[in-house]
Amino acid sequence: MTQPIDLSAALASFERIWSPRVVATVNDYDVRVAKTKGEHVWHVHNDTDEFFLVLDGQLRIALREEAGEREVVLDRGSLFVVPRGVFHKPSSPAGASVLVVEPSGTLSVGDEHDEVPDHVDVTVGHPLAGDAR
Amino acid sequence: MTQPIDLSAALASFERIWSPRVVATVNDYDVRVAKTKGEHVWHVHNDTDEFFLVLDGQLRIALREEAGEREVVLDRGSLFVVPRGVFHKPSSPAGASVLVVEPSGTLSVGDEHDEVPDHVDVTVGHPLAGDAR
Repeated sequence: MTQPIDLSAALASFERIWSPRVVATVNDYDVRVAKTKGEHVWHVHNDTDEFFLVLDGQLRIALREEAGEREVVLDRGSLFVVPRGVFHKPSSPAGASVLVVEPSGTLSVGDEHDEVPDHVDVTVGHPLAGDAR
Repeated sequence: MTQPIDLSAALASFERIWSPRVVATVNDYDVRVAKTKGEHVWHVHNDTDEFFLVLDGQLRIALREEAGEREVVLDRGSLFVVPRGVFHKPSSPAGASVLVVEPSGTLSVGDEHDEVPDHVDVTVGHPLAGDAR
């Protein structure tokens, strides 16, 4: 990275939902952006926490915790960390743009997951100025 | 973290410039927010990259690279990663709010630095709902 990256331009460069793009790497971590709409799948990252920051819209994250299931709601400018080992399902009825920080190589559907529908991309993140929209 | 954190509320909870607050931890990394105005000091992190995202205002980062010195300008919604080993000096003539991601324990003035003026805090980040404003 020799010049700053504008998040608006990055988000305007692709359209596919639930298909993160890697906008930066920090040591062995990725900073990814994704567009969300509708439901992701229940999944878990066994070995890593996952950081979410909502850039626009609203993201909901359902969580299966020891005390039961609950959902957190993140509006624009809100952040949340899903701890490792916690099954979660992001959803976004009205759509959102999110920034995610997690170790490079982290799979978008985690280490265990429900069946992945066509609208959810199984990926470790695509290059920003990348492939199919 | 049991509930999402709103960045606007986090930023409203303190006033001190160049004095980062830890808003979240992701594995052994911190997500910090800071208010910036005027000049930081030249410093270097020998062992880690440092990620900046401008939440409001404008941040400039001067860089001492092999090819010479240059400055990158980050407006609201722009991000940049300063690579490990590169001396840099953030500045913000008009003021800014920034989000920073770096390993927990990373010192705000790096491993080597110029003399630190009073307006720059030497810290590994303060708790969010913390101490003196």
